[in-house]
Amino acid sequence: MMSTSPLALPFPDMPEIGGVTKRVARARYKDWDRCDLTYVELCEGTAVAGVTTRNICCSAEVELCRDNLKGGLARALVVNAGNSNAFTGHRGREAVDAITEQVAAHLGCAPAQVFVSSTGVIGVPLPKDKAEAGLNAAFTAETCSWQDITDTIGTTDTFAKGASASAMVGGKRIEIVGVIKGSGMIAPDMATMLGYIFTDAAIEPGFLQHLLSTSNGATFNCITVDSDTSTSDTVLAFATGKAGNAPLTNFDDAGADAFASALHDVCRQLAHLVVRDGEGAQKFIEINVTGAVADESARRIALAIANSPLVKTAIAGEDANWGRVVMAVGKAGEPADRDRLSIRFGATLVAQNGLAIEGYDETPVAAHLKGQEIRIGVDIGLGSGSATVWTCDLTHGYISINADYRS
Amino acid sequence: MMSTSPLALPFPDMPEIGGVTKRVARARYKDWDRCDLTYVELCEGTAVAGVTTRNICCSAEVELCRDNLKGGLARALVVNAGNSNAFTGHRGREAVDAITEQVAAHLGCAPAQVFVSSTGVIGVPLPKDKAEAGLNAAFTAETCSWQDITDTIGTTDTFAKGASASAMVGGKRIEIVGVIKGSGMIAPDMATMLGYIFTDAAIEPGFLQHLLSTSNGATFNCITVDSDTSTSDTVLAFATGKAGNAPLTNFDDAGADAFASALHDVCRQLAHLVVRDGEGAQKFIEINVTGAVADESARRIALAIANSPLVKTAIAGEDANWGRVVMAVGKAGEPADRDRLSIRFGATLVAQNGLAIEGYDETPVAAHLKGQEIRIGVDIGLGSGSATVWTCDLTHGYISINADYRS
Repeated sequence: MMSTSPLALPFPDMPEIGGVTKRVARARYKDWDRCDLTYVELCEGTAVAGVTTRNICCSAEVELCRDNLKGGLARALVVNAGNSNAFTGHRGREAVDAITEQVAAHLGCAPAQVFVSSTGVIGVPLPKDKAEAGLNAAFTAETCSWQDITDTIGTTDTFAKGASASAMVGGKRIEIVGVIKGSGMIAPDMATMLGYIFTDAAIEPGFLQHLLSTSNGATFNCITVDSDTSTSDTVLAFATGKAGNAPLTNFDDAGADAFASALHDVCRQLAHLVVRDGEGAQKFIEINVTGAVADESARRIALAIANSPLVKTAIAGEDANWGRVVMAVGKAGEPADRDRLSIRFGATLVAQNGLAIEGYDETPVAAHLKGQEIRIGVDIGLGSGSATVWTCDLTHGYISINADYRS
Repeated sequence: MMSTSPLALPFPDMPEIGGVTKRVARARYKDWDRCDLTYVELCEGTAVAGVTTRNICCSAEVELCRDNLKGGLARALVVNAGNSNAFTGHRGREAVDAITEQVAAHLGCAPAQVFVSSTGVIGVPLPKDKAEAGLNAAFTAETCSWQDITDTIGTTDTFAKGASASAMVGGKRIEIVGVIKGSGMIAPDMATMLGYIFTDAAIEPGFLQHLLSTSNGATFNCITVDSDTSTSDTVLAFATGKAGNAPLTNFDDAGADAFASALHDVCRQLAHLVVRDGEGAQKFIEINVTGAVADESARRIALAIANSPLVKTAIAGEDANWGRVVMAVGKAGEPADRDRLSIRFGATLVAQNGLAIEGYDETPVAAHLKGQEIRIGVDIGLGSGSATVWTCDLTHGYISINADYRS
């Protein structure tokens, strides 16, 4: 058992979401005595949207999610923990199909309205008999709390991760709740980020997808722990409509902005929680790039900094090593001019116009770097593109988790 | 002082190269008692070629090399160790110009025939007075050995790195000698790879550049320690012509193939030596990708595997974690099909057509992973593109070198 991340936050109080019924069960995918199968029933008419990994070698579950998202409707979510079912060929797909068919028969819905995720060991087809028995147990189990859900979807997470927000939409208060697992991992698993967002708002699936994709670009796609991309990463959003608002269809609808803002807030909180549970993380790092030729260029530069082992180890060492930041900017492959760069640590400008600021006050920089929340600011000096990404430092803990192990 | 890399090789016997006069001196760029200025005189008519970092934020020295390479001729090389002169703006360029002018006056040549490299601390302009005094000392110093040169260009390298080869060109025996520094680094330095190749062959500068660029693509550009790219990386090749062969101008000339092969051999040896001195390296890893849609696609996939922290820590842990290799293939952004992938560790096929090989013999795999030389083979199953890259594992040593330090 890994010790809890020093960057952990307490699990928040989160409201129930009308139309969402949560249960967990023991499928015993591994030889353990804990719930490892999550079963969430969604009321009829629930809209669904989702974003999945860009990794070409994705799991059968990811392929299923992509297929089923086309319909825009969901009646159930099943999450298996302990076996990722990745790299298992046709047998993996058969196991997933068996789950969707069993749930569809139970609910009397189309299999295409059942969404499945799995996380854990790779290369071993998900055992169909365990999934079937686990689901049968879940169908008749007591309903459970959000914390039970996060504990059940988690594998090597060191703390439970949830976030919520609310908004007024057309005179109705709507709630959004999200849970996520990820970043903790031991071989032979791959870090898998699985996130689920539930809202009682009524919203048309295409608009929900648009909002989720937009928020994803600035939240989940702006975090990095070690630059590696799981084959199973998935975030799904379910909207039951039980809040009773007039369904949102576009930004002209009353409350659409408020809903989008609340959804974005939940995505951002969940994304930050994943970084806070990054393997070996001791410091949470925000990297803000301004002055790039475009926002996407700024994002690429920011990710080059965030993924640089030399930058990440410098932060671990509480070293204001702006030279490594310069190096990372230069290797990003984006337009930059060495002699226009400015770099800040915390609130302190340490380099400007390509030169170290002579005699800058190192005291506030040293104090900032000793903290747990580090901010690096880089101005490229060329345009108005900007981006913010989040990562954690690279420590002995990362090596211990990922190398000091035999499968 | 870092302890010598466990992957170190002994320094080879290397012949003198006609037309090359080597001297070293103490410029005392840092508060140390060692030679830190290298001065190599080249006979008139020496052809030069070079490749430099793609990092946009490159040093003034790199800009000078690029400018001077256009002339194709060299009379001298100066290498400063202890101060990289990077990110020092116009004052850095002035320091470099002062060196080229001093050497040009001494030799009676054009400043454009003088090549300068610097490695060490960044952000501090190279002190002109120290460079001037150091050069004056070098002009009158005794000539020295190749090992003296490697010791003088090195900074935090843990062993001296050199390689040589010979070939028959038009009935004349020609010699090629190379020295390189790099991969050892402590903050606030950046890893800087500086390599110098000397040959007594006669060869036209454009053809030398063509051969160096080609070899560079398959050697120096196929190694990675941590995916970070120095702002100062430079490899220069000097050809004095003292072997007396008819100058090589293209592949139709007798001996051109032999020369190209010998040059490639020296580049490959030097590149491997850099990996062998990778920070914290315990294992030398060769990654061979076949069956990609093109050679360049294979190279990108191979580098994605080589740069993956999860793959590198798995090797450090002697864990045959092929799932992480699959993940890295999938994130490379190149054409691949999960269900056609095959993966080997050493000589053992562990996964084929997207599935683990059931019951494969783990004994030879475990034995292979316990060694110092690890081979990972990946067949993409789509085409005939192939590439080989080299890297080292990611260990606690890397973190210690780069994080457990305060500038």
